Amino acid sequence: MSAPLRAVEIIAAKRDGKVLSREQIAAFVSGYANGSIPDYQAAAWCMAVFLKGMTPEETGHLTQAMIDSGDVIDLSSVSGPLADKHSTGGVGDKISLVLAPIAAACGVNVPMMSGRALGHTGGTLDKLESMPGFSTSLSPEGFAEAVNKVGYGLIGQSEKIVPADRKLYALRDVIATVESIPLITGSILSKKFAEGADALVMDVKCGVGAFMKTREAARELALSLVGAGKSLGRRVIAVITDMSEPLGRMVGNFLEVEESIACLEGRGPDDVMAITYRLTAWMLIAAGLENDIFQAEERCRRAVSDGSALKKFRENAAFQGCNLSDLDAMIGRTRGRCSRDIPAPQGGIVNSINAFSAGMAAVALGVGRDKADDKVQPLAGIELLKKSGDAVAAGEALMRLWSEEEWRLDAAVQRLTGAVIIKQTAPELRRSLILEEISD
Amino acid sequence: MSAPLRAVEIIAAKRDGKVLSREQIAAFVSGYANGSIPDYQAAAWCMAVFLKGMTPEETGHLTQAMIDSGDVIDLSSVSGPLADKHSTGGVGDKISLVLAPIAAACGVNVPMMSGRALGHTGGTLDKLESMPGFSTSLSPEGFAEAVNKVGYGLIGQSEKIVPADRKLYALRDVIATVESIPLITGSILSKKFAEGADALVMDVKCGVGAFMKTREAARELALSLVGAGKSLGRRVIAVITDMSEPLGRMVGNFLEVEESIACLEGRGPDDVMAITYRLTAWMLIAAGLENDIFQAEERCRRAVSDGSALKKFRENAAFQGCNLSDLDAMIGRTRGRCSRDIPAPQGGIVNSINAFSAGMAAVALGVGRDKADDKVQPLAGIELLKKSGDAVAAGEALMRLWSEEEWRLDAAVQRLTGAVIIKQTAPELRRSLILEEISD
Repeated sequence: MSAPLRAVEIIAAKRDGKVLSREQIAAFVSGYANGSIPDYQAAAWCMAVFLKGMTPEETGHLTQAMIDSGDVIDLSSVSGPLADKHSTGGVGDKISLVLAPIAAACGVNVPMMSGRALGHTGGTLDKLESMPGFSTSLSPEGFAEAVNKVGYGLIGQSEKIVPADRKLYALRDVIATVESIPLITGSILSKKFAEGADALVMDVKCGVGAFMKTREAARELALSLVGAGKSLGRRVIAVITDMSEPLGRMVGNFLEVEESIACLEGRGPDDVMAITYRLTAWMLIAAGLENDIFQAEERCRRAVSDGSALKKFRENAAFQGCNLSDLDAMIGRTRGRCSRDIPAPQGGIVNSINAFSAGMAAVALGVGRDKADDKVQPLAGIELLKKSGDAVAAGEALMRLWSEEEWRLDAAVQRLTGAVIIKQTAPELRRSLILEEISD
Repeated sequence: MSAPLRAVEIIAAKRDGKVLSREQIAAFVSGYANGSIPDYQAAAWCMAVFLKGMTPEETGHLTQAMIDSGDVIDLSSVSGPLADKHSTGGVGDKISLVLAPIAAACGVNVPMMSGRALGHTGGTLDKLESMPGFSTSLSPEGFAEAVNKVGYGLIGQSEKIVPADRKLYALRDVIATVESIPLITGSILSKKFAEGADALVMDVKCGVGAFMKTREAARELALSLVGAGKSLGRRVIAVITDMSEPLGRMVGNFLEVEESIACLEGRGPDDVMAITYRLTAWMLIAAGLENDIFQAEERCRRAVSDGSALKKFRENAAFQGCNLSDLDAMIGRTRGRCSRDIPAPQGGIVNSINAFSAGMAAVALGVGRDKADDKVQPLAGIELLKKSGDAVAAGEALMRLWSEEEWRLDAAVQRLTGAVIIKQTAPELRRSLILEEISD
């Protein structure tokens, strides 16, 4: 006897902790996407999924059903392996901007569909659009051409890709089911696979500045992503990385573009480069170009040192409409109209910088959004003049803030209260930024 | 710090298994009743309540919040104790029609608000309305007068009483949360207390013909009802009774009125009378008129044997518009236009009659409803010519069906397939119909 397909029966089955069939999940997700299943039934189902969970197979079915709710980008014209990277979101997380050109320089085709700033975390699209003329709204053909010609393309999510995700996400936000591991997994993987990637490296961030605050939650999500990918026959590799302190020295939109270019010029901060090289190396392995993670990392380093990654970056920027001479002219010069330095209240050694506070301060400055339709400020942001381990004198500047409005500086300063811990002793030896690597 | 009152925070708290405060439950229920909290948030909350449960105190707060969503019947003009009985629903369950006049004859004021047939279970209102002229839509004043003058009144639920329950029940039905013990408790108790009862005796039916199929589920509901009542300072006594076989010999609307009158005339079937006397006796105790259950039962028996209960029945019927001479003329004579006998396929001793099948057959005959706006047939129903323990010859009639349409007889016969088990041996000694009694 086949499993019942009526919405109320599917809800009851998940409520009772049963494993839903592919048909049941497909019927529920497509019914919700096309409006035949109302919000209230989807709400009850999401809560049942939150509390009863899903097996990797169910999560795979969910992912596929979400993909099937809309268009899928056709990248069959692209020759060579297709792989992508996705991050659960961090503060100062400009890794996509550095990783994509390195991966492309190493021969991986990277079809990257990114998001905007959300809460305290930055958004790759907002960063890209701070470059003069850069467009993140390529047509499907233009996107395929970017991937084919340059080796990578960076676009926003179209309305036609995974419409079920937009609907489900908006609902989950108001019914306290955002934190459901299978629902997060389906949301991430459906978008990534609909954009045309064959394989995916997931940067699961963990810590105060991340969505997953604890190691356990991060591991649970990582395992779910890898397991659901496997059940769909797609390679997913998850790397859990530390997000207790902002990555690099820049938090902002154009500020992070500048730092990304510095990274590609071989002048990147250690923390950004360590994570970037590791994630990019996993992409090479996922794409079948390398077998050994250390050899793969070495190949990524060479792509930076020989300038080929920077060349890819400029090729991509030009392809996506950026005026490179205008871009070059902005570097190091163009900043928000107002600025303020935050002085150290005492001398000593910086022991920690709270990534969540820094992210919230950046939102206050205009880097992110308080409401979904707010405009972001391309030139706003924070430069961390000191990072953990750096010595600082009393009154010396810890960080510099930029914004277009003075009142935003005040708001940011408020949010930074207590964010930087200065002690007379050096911080404990920092754990590796790479906390755990999970591949099936 | 007071507990958060935003809907999404209340949902998250219950999702995480926290105990909600009175203020949180009141905010959620009143918000849902007045439309400021949408269906999808209520749906997620109901599922969280289903899976995480509620303490007796929370269930008490839920009950009070539901009462507060609408009008409360004012019975302050009634002198003497007010108590009511409610059943979770059964097949052939005409106990309200027999119990109310007995209780009234013993001095209890019974303000009874009843429901209509639902699924396979019959409805007291439908039975009452099969009496010529009987009206179940008294005004609040008329209802109070009935209780005051006759000792009891029987009405339907007004739109103004506990509107939150109608809204929540319609929602629960389509999101697979009907079976939630705290939500059932709140639904039952809010209606009973809003109608003006001070104390309540609950008949929690248990078995294939009941909503609660297992003893464990019935006990859980009974404990919840008693506990929530206690937390509201109201006396609730729960009696778990067997509902594996239809009660009495009649299943229908007017057929059950007839059988109820026979009960009040001292000619009632043993099973109906055993449960009726016990429940009515508990009402006398709940109302403070008796202390000992056996003495209380004895007083109920006297009210039948001395004719005072029957007198109350006729007084009430007349008060609520019934033409008593028309009623008397119908007894034993007026039946559905079409009838059919179900013959025993073999000789032997009836071992069991499945109450659920009988209930579903009764619905097919027109006793109940397939859809909410179906009309019921007052004269349709089933007469059980044999009950468990009775000997039957092959081909002898087991039961007689009545309906206004032939095709309904066919449908009922189908639903009765396998419903009666006949063996060559007598059934095992039947357990008591009174399975458990719970009072705080």
